[in-house]
Amino acid sequence: MSTSAGLVIPCKAAVAWEAGKPLVIEQVEVAPPQAMEVRIKIKYTSLCRTDLHFWEAKGNTQLFPRIFGHEAAGIVESVGEGVKDLDVGDHVLPVFTGECGECGHCKSEESNMCDLLRINATRGVMLADGNSRFSLKGKPINHFLGTSTFSEYTVVHSGCVVKINPLAPLDKVCILSCGISTGLGSIFNVAKPKKGSSVAVFGLGAVGLAAAEGARIAGASRIIGVDRSSKRFEEGNIYNLFINLSSTVEKNCLKKNVELTYCFILYLSSLSVLVYLSGTLTPITLLKRVQVIAEITNGGVDRSIECTGNIDNMISAFECVHDGWGVAVLVGVPNKDAVFMTKPINVLNERTLKGTFFGNYKPRSDLPSVVDMYMNKKLELEKFITHHVPFSEINTAFELMLKGQGLRCIINMEA
Amino acid sequence: MSTSAGLVIPCKAAVAWEAGKPLVIEQVEVAPPQAMEVRIKIKYTSLCRTDLHFWEAKGNTQLFPRIFGHEAAGIVESVGEGVKDLDVGDHVLPVFTGECGECGHCKSEESNMCDLLRINATRGVMLADGNSRFSLKGKPINHFLGTSTFSEYTVVHSGCVVKINPLAPLDKVCILSCGISTGLGSIFNVAKPKKGSSVAVFGLGAVGLAAAEGARIAGASRIIGVDRSSKRFEEGNIYNLFINLSSTVEKNCLKKNVELTYCFILYLSSLSVLVYLSGTLTPITLLKRVQVIAEITNGGVDRSIECTGNIDNMISAFECVHDGWGVAVLVGVPNKDAVFMTKPINVLNERTLKGTFFGNYKPRSDLPSVVDMYMNKKLELEKFITHHVPFSEINTAFELMLKGQGLRCIINMEA
Repeated sequence: MSTSAGLVIPCKAAVAWEAGKPLVIEQVEVAPPQAMEVRIKIKYTSLCRTDLHFWEAKGNTQLFPRIFGHEAAGIVESVGEGVKDLDVGDHVLPVFTGECGECGHCKSEESNMCDLLRINATRGVMLADGNSRFSLKGKPINHFLGTSTFSEYTVVHSGCVVKINPLAPLDKVCILSCGISTGLGSIFNVAKPKKGSSVAVFGLGAVGLAAAEGARIAGASRIIGVDRSSKRFEEGNIYNLFINLSSTVEKNCLKKNVELTYCFILYLSSLSVLVYLSGTLTPITLLKRVQVIAEITNGGVDRSIECTGNIDNMISAFECVHDGWGVAVLVGVPNKDAVFMTKPINVLNERTLKGTFFGNYKPRSDLPSVVDMYMNKKLELEKFITHHVPFSEINTAFELMLKGQGLRCIINMEA
Repeated sequence: MSTSAGLVIPCKAAVAWEAGKPLVIEQVEVAPPQAMEVRIKIKYTSLCRTDLHFWEAKGNTQLFPRIFGHEAAGIVESVGEGVKDLDVGDHVLPVFTGECGECGHCKSEESNMCDLLRINATRGVMLADGNSRFSLKGKPINHFLGTSTFSEYTVVHSGCVVKINPLAPLDKVCILSCGISTGLGSIFNVAKPKKGSSVAVFGLGAVGLAAAEGARIAGASRIIGVDRSSKRFEEGNIYNLFINLSSTVEKNCLKKNVELTYCFILYLSSLSVLVYLSGTLTPITLLKRVQVIAEITNGGVDRSIECTGNIDNMISAFECVHDGWGVAVLVGVPNKDAVFMTKPINVLNERTLKGTFFGNYKPRSDLPSVVDMYMNKKLELEKFITHHVPFSEINTAFELMLKGQGLRCIINMEA
């Protein structure tokens, strides 16, 4: 038992008062955990695009004031009634989606879409009683994704709390709560490339680069990164391996006023520049890139992962896999009006289209092993962490993401 | 060596002289097999919808005169140079698609879409020399799918010839050359339902009923058959298990002038009638059936198999599988202008869409075990055979299929 168990904890939290306005560090009160809930002292949190998306609240439910944050690591401060497998002092990752252990999805070997604790972005309260555990001068503040980790303390349903190896550095493994695991899981649990495979990754943000890292770990012999932003090329340098075709491509594209798509080719075993399309650097339009990929891979990649949510990318990601055995995995969240369209013959020619949510990881059952993969030096996390800020400067993390700079910015709650 | 080896064989063949016109039994000459080819004495053949489709030649290449036929069983009469694993007297199934053993597809564990011997419906000649092995009064007659089994003797590439158990009755296993294996393989090799699964089958022709038979063998606990034709209901009685909702549904549909879809519910363990939609027999329209299936299966079927090629059925087959783990398999060949469309969220919610060609069977490697499955009484073939005719009455098989009567009509080449 901690001395604070059962008591309201006053602490600092970054409160979003309005859509798109800088967060304000406020003194809030955090109520004790109720039945099946856990109160966590957050040590490190990081900013993910989903926070930004709901903070901007363009076209989304406006639930303000709200405490955002869902990628984090911390230590259990106290547990509510009925919580059996978590205890004070446990090192944990809070996760935006959960595992009740009882529903059809939890009992299925394949699904992680728990009926009870599946992600819910429109709910600003706790499941147990429909109330918030956060208040400021007596008025409730909305939760976000059941995690609200931009607070020194937070309350989370125990089904969304993952107990991890206590030796794991929390300032690194905090990024496994969401985007990085999503990318890794899309490879390990869904695409499952064989050793020596070719893998195309659409969208080289944190999720896409995590998919590329997963492909590296799985033994892919070639990874093709597709992205429209030249900034992503620079982040490709995190690997020191992505090859820049951007300048020539950009010049040609601007001249011809065609839509611009970069295509980076990463050889894991070599730094030599791959010049494709018969030795000529050629502008690659959205329409052509499937053919380009087919050309440089003798008919298509073995696996592709779509991490942007853009519908054209989804269709290209599917159509660029090899007939007979290719598997495309959709990861990026689409616009709700988008429609996936393809000629059925592309399916009939023995291609597979799969979708995944959180990389098909069941958070409580599976994430501890991902943490251990990092501890065993199989997985590299450092390259995804490009910035650090103290909690007091949390708005800097938002600014960096808005500018498209960096991958993950770690927010130190105690600095 | 047979006495006829190396000689031209005069024999009877059913020649299609014009699109849609009755076949004519003619005396043709069959040249000896060339390198890597096999000459087969056909014992039994059956009519498949693909024969009918290219015989009608609506919108297809017109290659006449032509000898159709691709579902058959026979005995090797002689082999060409270089054929090592087939010999005179072997019992064989000629297959419309082949296995060269050397290409990327043949070397892949997953694909059966051989680069060299993949189905080709527009070629009327043999690969080796671009000539036909059939002639009539000195004029060549076109081959069909490299098999042309509506002839007492035919020449087939050895990569398309499957050596089978010599004890297998050729008048039964001949139907494994195409449709029945396509349906079975869509279950065994692609959908892979677990024991106790629910499986929906769209289109209850021979392929769809073979998929249902596969689902039975795989231990499915519920099979839902969807078909628009009331005739299919009667064929459902082949199983004595399909349950008729047609008369009430039909009356309601006609009254409201909505498009009609039957939905048969087959319980493998019971004959009790399932009355769905809260105890009321309700007309099921194309738009509604996905919801109907979701309602009667608690969220969707575990697996679905689309065997019609109709694009609306393809979309429904995908959208009716359960999120989290559902797998839809497309089998039916689509219209070339059709477009598969779905909201990407249907994919992202962890559904899988797969396509298959010939049930993913590699003909030479895999079909012998399907024949053995029949020999071991695991697989029932008799129920697919509804008619028999002597070769001289082959046009009756076409008439039956045009009327939508029966499933497979066996044509006895020696009667």
